Amino acid sequence: MSREPVRFADKFAAVHDLWSPRIVARMNDIDFKLVRIRGEFVWHRHPETDEAFIVLEGSMEIRFRDGAVRLEAGDMFVVPRGVEHCPVAREECRILLVEPAGTRNTGDAAGERTAPSDVWI
Amino acid sequence: MSREPVRFADKFAAVHDLWSPRIVARMNDIDFKLVRIRGEFVWHRHPETDEAFIVLEGSMEIRFRDGAVRLEAGDMFVVPRGVEHCPVAREECRILLVEPAGTRNTGDAAGERTAPSDVWI
Repeated sequence: MSREPVRFADKFAAVHDLWSPRIVARMNDIDFKLVRIRGEFVWHRHPETDEAFIVLEGSMEIRFRDGAVRLEAGDMFVVPRGVEHCPVAREECRILLVEPAGTRNTGDAAGERTAPSDVWI
Repeated sequence: MSREPVRFADKFAAVHDLWSPRIVARMNDIDFKLVRIRGEFVWHRHPETDEAFIVLEGSMEIRFRDGAVRLEAGDMFVVPRGVEHCPVAREECRILLVEPAGTRNTGDAAGERTAPSDVWI
């Protein structure tokens, strides 16, 4: 067992790509992923799982087909499984995603914005 | 589906007891619990699950029988299932626990420090 804490600030120093989740910890079969985001992502849904967003720095919006939720640092939100959503950030925002190992960032949409779901830093 | 973010600061305003986890969100069968801690907890283990600690404010230590890990705000650590541990905080510390729904705060130790594992705020 490692005795080193996972220090988010240190980990982010090694994350250069936007919209590319990096795993920093695993609890049972649940991954904790750091992501830098800016701009608009793609509309997608995760038919098999809920997805938890925790904002660490900055602010973001999660758009739904019939509304949106705005998140600031210190806020979290769980997108229920199957609900179509599109994350958006006007300025760079740093988030922690919590979701089952293997969850694809683009869900059912796939396409060119799909990033590997198994990269640790 | 709620469209309200979970705002940790607002939720903590309603948490008065120490060592009493309060559920603020659920992702699949995983609970996100806010806890105010100060002092020394009890030694215990969770034979059935890992347990993730994320420090939101302050600092804490997780002691093991053969060492310890110190966590500051912005750090996380996953205690593997079955590993005996004792959380300690010199000053009040605010943490986010992520663990399966129903996980008991005192694990296999039970006793008077056991808090309900199903209280939402």
